[in-house]
Amino acid sequence: MEKSELLYEGKGKKMWSVKGNDELLIAEFKDDLTAFNAEKKGNEEGKGALNNQISTAIFKLLKENGIETALVESISPTEQLVKKCSIIPLEVVVRNIATGSLSKRLGIKEATVLPFTLVEFYYKDDALGDPLINDEHAILLDIVQSEQDLATLRHLGRQINSVLQPFFASKGLKLVDFKVEFGIDKDGNILLADEISPDSCRFWDVDTGEKMDKDRFRQDLGSVKVAYEEVLRRILS
Amino acid sequence: MEKSELLYEGKGKKMWSVKGNDELLIAEFKDDLTAFNAEKKGNEEGKGALNNQISTAIFKLLKENGIETALVESISPTEQLVKKCSIIPLEVVVRNIATGSLSKRLGIKEATVLPFTLVEFYYKDDALGDPLINDEHAILLDIVQSEQDLATLRHLGRQINSVLQPFFASKGLKLVDFKVEFGIDKDGNILLADEISPDSCRFWDVDTGEKMDKDRFRQDLGSVKVAYEEVLRRILS
Ligand SMILES: Nc1ncnc2c1ncn2[C@@H]1O[C@H](COP(=O)(O)OP(=O)(O)OP(=O)(O)O)[C@@H](O)[C@H]1O
Ligand SMILES: Nc1ncnc2c1ncn2[C@@H]1O[C@H](COP(=O)(O)OP(=O)(O)OP(=O)(O)O)[C@@H](O)[C@H]1O
Ligand SMILES: [Mg+2]
Ligand SMILES: [Mg+2]
Repeated sequence: MEKSELLYEGKGKKMWSVKGNDELLIAEFKDDLTAFNAEKKGNEEGKGALNNQISTAIFKLLKENGIETALVESISPTEQLVKKCSIIPLEVVVRNIATGSLSKRLGIKEATVLPFTLVEFYYKDDALGDPLINDEHAILLDIVQSEQDLATLRHLGRQINSVLQPFFASKGLKLVDFKVEFGIDKDGNILLADEISPDSCRFWDVDTGEKMDKDRFRQDLGSVKVAYEEVLRRILS
Repeated sequence: MEKSELLYEGKGKKMWSVKGNDELLIAEFKDDLTAFNAEKKGNEEGKGALNNQISTAIFKLLKENGIETALVESISPTEQLVKKCSIIPLEVVVRNIATGSLSKRLGIKEATVLPFTLVEFYYKDDALGDPLINDEHAILLDIVQSEQDLATLRHLGRQINSVLQPFFASKGLKLVDFKVEFGIDKDGNILLADEISPDSCRFWDVDTGEKMDKDRFRQDLGSVKVAYEEVLRRILS
């Protein structure tokens, strides 16, 4: 599998086409860190490789639990081979504990355990700052065709949570919340795509409450890499 | 019916208890104008009386069309007698044409006629700036008990629109969007409460496109009162 053309450089990854195969892409994980809609910028050497390994392990676990994903395999320390799909422009956010923007927007006390797993849809549009939307907005914007599609995405979000939450609990980490993206493959199937990593999740150490995710960067809480290494160590343990 | 105690002074109305009757309230319409979460303030003499008359006429029309409302009757130029109810802390916004915050948040071109009547829920909380919420937030915040309640509110919003949109069209006004509030009366019924007036609706003249609502104040487009008088004249015509 040889990289051909750089199709897209995002904040966290470069997406490459693959020579002679237009059903696959190579995702190259970068060391860059961004937050607050890219207003804050940073970089830690090795972060990309950690996210590649963490996301690969999580996607494999989800696959074993019946979730279809776009991951084919990790092909180098920083690269994954993935099925090319048409990304549904939604950030699907799944929350177990209130923090961050949820606490701020709705006045819910930080660290409140939610009475049920909350699913939110944000419209993936950097220029608009990824606004929260409701179901009718998603249909209005032609993001999905029907209320049924949204029910499917909500269900997938909750299914992923019901695999990951106990998994991380067994590793001494609270899965506070996470963001996922879904894509449609050439056969019309909905696949879990993009990544699940400490850049897109919040993990709190069960014992110490220590933040083991990108909030370390957002809130200047010290080395990101050391925490991500610990997350990977526990996942593989 | 005699006013007893001032229970609440809002941005647009004063709410009074009624001597010897605790199932009723008197709503007194003020001449104050506010916009942008009360950052912009103004006042036009006679505005309150116009809103009282307009809202009374609209609530009567809706009652004739089967919508239960909290209005008992208008009892003076600026006052209404209303059934006291427990207000559901939602601003239910119903939109036929994109403008204002919808256009800005989602990048929808101003004045786009929407392919369907959109209903949005905003959490009525001044300190939080009345944030947009989704259905799961409404349940999380205990605003309603079930998804079914939200479906009822959406249905009521659309029913009101399906009465008002053709009514205003016949008066040469496009009903662009409006905000309604609902309350629960002592028997547990959901009633349309608060007001429907040019302070809470957008009306555009069918021929000239002129704005005949509070956007005149928001955007410094000239006298509010002259436009509200014209809206009242057309409603009564
Ligand atoms: N399997 C896939 N097929 C096609 N596109 C994908 C796939 N997986 C991820 N993508 C897309 O590739 C890009 C990955 O880059 P990155 O995550 O750095 O983007 P980003 O900076 O977060 O910006 P944005 O996600 O807003 O485009 C994203 O746009 C993502 O939606
Ligand atoms: N029938 C009713 N029974 C009880 N309360 C009502 C009724 N109708 C309206 N209200 C409430 O009375 C208040 C009316 O005041 P006003 O419209 O000026 O408030 P406001 O400044 O818009 O502030 P807010 O609506 O955010 O409280 C509102 O809080 C409204 O929800
Ligand atoms: Mg991304
Ligand atoms: Mg009000």
